Amino acid sequence: MTTGFTIWFTGLSGAGKSTLATILERELRARGSRVEVLDGDVVRTHLSKGLGFSREDRDTNIRRIGWVCEVLTRNDVVAIAAAISPFREVRDEVRARVGRFVEVFVDVPLETAIARDVKGLYAKALAGEIAQFTGVSDPYEAPLRPEVTIRSAEETPEASAARVLAALEELGYLAGAGRLPHERSAAA
Amino acid sequence: MTTGFTIWFTGLSGAGKSTLATILERELRARGSRVEVLDGDVVRTHLSKGLGFSREDRDTNIRRIGWVCEVLTRNDVVAIAAAISPFREVRDEVRARVGRFVEVFVDVPLETAIARDVKGLYAKALAGEIAQFTGVSDPYEAPLRPEVTIRSAEETPEASAARVLAALEELGYLAGAGRLPHERSAAA
Repeated sequence: MTTGFTIWFTGLSGAGKSTLATILERELRARGSRVEVLDGDVVRTHLSKGLGFSREDRDTNIRRIGWVCEVLTRNDVVAIAAAISPFREVRDEVRARVGRFVEVFVDVPLETAIARDVKGLYAKALAGEIAQFTGVSDPYEAPLRPEVTIRSAEETPEASAARVLAALEELGYLAGAGRLPHERSAAA
Repeated sequence: MTTGFTIWFTGLSGAGKSTLATILERELRARGSRVEVLDGDVVRTHLSKGLGFSREDRDTNIRRIGWVCEVLTRNDVVAIAAAISPFREVRDEVRARVGRFVEVFVDVPLETAIARDVKGLYAKALAGEIAQFTGVSDPYEAPLRPEVTIRSAEETPEASAARVLAALEELGYLAGAGRLPHERSAAA
């Protein structure tokens, strides 16, 4: 049993946030944690249908995800948010509310994200078919002091996930991988 | 450690849902459960700001509370929802999604709720100052097969809470109160 905390991935569409969230979910479950991934797209369906992509609506969406992270964290669940969350102010607001909060900036050059274009959204945004698209027609404010920065164009997702896990250990959210399970429980 | 489930209180404003939720929260925590109360008014602030009281907006609000209950339940937390939730169809939809779901109908005569009028809302609703007020100018659909029915005008909140706890034991969500804590863990 570990105590709860929140891992907050932020970065452009296509940076690799969801991929990393999925790997970490698996790794943390294997270490005995309860884990819930809050994927931006999924959460929009459940909590924010009807909200658009104005700054105000984006902030409302992020506050809702943040509130669910807060509730999960205080109930000993590891919440992993994977949402673009482009605005610094509301991310910091969520950080303050959650408390046990690890911000992971998934940094990727815009050209790389455009080249990947997993969901085909950049092509549409560049053609002007999607308005207010982060990185193309809407701003992205990088974190100033994230706990971890991942450069997803320069390493594999597995290597990035290992660096997040190492940071979680260093920050005291996880016991070292070398310890036995019962020592982990005691430490948590 | 218990596994998660959802206790869903439904009933008129002033029926006593929040009072019961608070007593159960305390009792279940004392038995070692993680517990989160989702109070209708509080959740409207965090998840549903901007939604009104049309049937569609009420259903959206209830689906959001239901989704949070679902997430908490699958992460071994006991979620306690206390919201009027006047419409049967969406309550049953939430029941189906959550799975481990205990519906508690807090039944109170409308006259009693009006006489209590804890929040002063009935006076306003009866004076026509609040539109779409459940029981006055908007329908309330009682559950057809709730796991528990509480008649809050006829017994103390403590007696009602004890009946909910007894039902939870009977339904297998809690080990009997007579057992030792470690036996409870094993049974859960």
